[in-house]
Amino acid sequence: MDKERIEKQFEFCLEADKEKFIGRQTYLSDGVRKENDAEHAWHMALMTLILSEYANEEIDVLKTISMILIHDIVEIDAGDTYAYDEKGKESQRDREVKAADRLFEILPKDQQKKFRDLWEEFEACETKEAKFARVMDNLQPLMLNHATGGKSWEERGIRVSQVLKRNQITPEGSQTLWEYAFENLILPSLKTGALKDDREKVVGEDKTDEPETNFR
Amino acid sequence: MDKERIEKQFEFCLEADKEKFIGRQTYLSDGVRKENDAEHAWHMALMTLILSEYANEEIDVLKTISMILIHDIVEIDAGDTYAYDEKGKESQRDREVKAADRLFEILPKDQQKKFRDLWEEFEACETKEAKFARVMDNLQPLMLNHATGGKSWEERGIRVSQVLKRNQITPEGSQTLWEYAFENLILPSLKTGALKDDREKVVGEDKTDEPETNFR
Repeated sequence: MDKERIEKQFEFCLEADKEKFIGRQTYLSDGVRKENDAEHAWHMALMTLILSEYANEEIDVLKTISMILIHDIVEIDAGDTYAYDEKGKESQRDREVKAADRLFEILPKDQQKKFRDLWEEFEACETKEAKFARVMDNLQPLMLNHATGGKSWEERGIRVSQVLKRNQITPEGSQTLWEYAFENLILPSLKTGALKDDREKVVGEDKTDEPETNFR
Repeated sequence: MDKERIEKQFEFCLEADKEKFIGRQTYLSDGVRKENDAEHAWHMALMTLILSEYANEEIDVLKTISMILIHDIVEIDAGDTYAYDEKGKESQRDREVKAADRLFEILPKDQQKKFRDLWEEFEACETKEAKFARVMDNLQPLMLNHATGGKSWEERGIRVSQVLKRNQITPEGSQTLWEYAFENLILPSLKTGALKDDREKVVGEDKTDEPETNFR
């Protein structure tokens, strides 16, 4: 047993426990408590097992899940930046890079590189695996928001244009899941008003509920 | 898009959210709050990414992580059975099989079979992947118990013989991780008395802190 190696690995595993203390803005399906980063990552990983068949291109599922399991670890130091917090997002990258420097360096050199690379790949969102991981990162809270009648959107006065901007990249990972999500997880909250409708009005009488050309 | 298929899959993904409501007996590393099943499964999966090199035989990491991500889902209906609750364990299998019947049947037929098989494989604990998953299931709470000075053991008056019985199978998945865990995650709590020492006393003067022959 290489004692120094295994000690570093356990130090990282223990440090990772702090992800359970990082709260997110999404309510669990009962609408009472909000979830934390560890719960969110588990849910995304599980959803990848169930939904990976809908990736636009066939993905390496292990690589995608690995990325998902560590994608929020930097928030241990940097905190969670709410999807619609434009001010917080300005400093997000700097805060997260500093956190990544500290956290991944706990690991032995070879694993430092492996997991830092995975995190950077998720951040860059260019590969098919990173794009699918991002689909999960966006769809999991959409699913929970829908389940709670859009509670967290309503509380914060979120507009549909913000949700659509956030999801601009979603169809690049999975066109099918984006279509499903738009119809079944976003439109219902738009209809009830929990999600504010700030879409441009279509002139004329044949305005439908789903102006596909504007938003997909 | 096969609408019936995708709807079943999302129904399962949403139902799985309830794992976040299932509390366990292990305290998080700050010793304040206890963790839940979803957090535990995420932590085990992450630890598998970091520690899989110590499996006695090379394992299929994706299969192991898949097993881990769903291993506690039956507790949504059956509740968590504490590792040292002998009475609860008598009815555990029956309760969990009923839960598995209901939960996996939410999925489309092919995925029903896939995930039910994975769950049964974890339960049977015969394959190298199931054995390694069980190592994670045992080591993750050992690590947290150690981090909190054995808090949950002390509160419940747990004896080291119970911990060793629970871990009988751990060396079958990873001899190295078991040795590390015994020395670094169990012995310290035995020395402080947080974990009760009910090992047979060795007659003679050369009794050491670590009577290896009795417990490995």
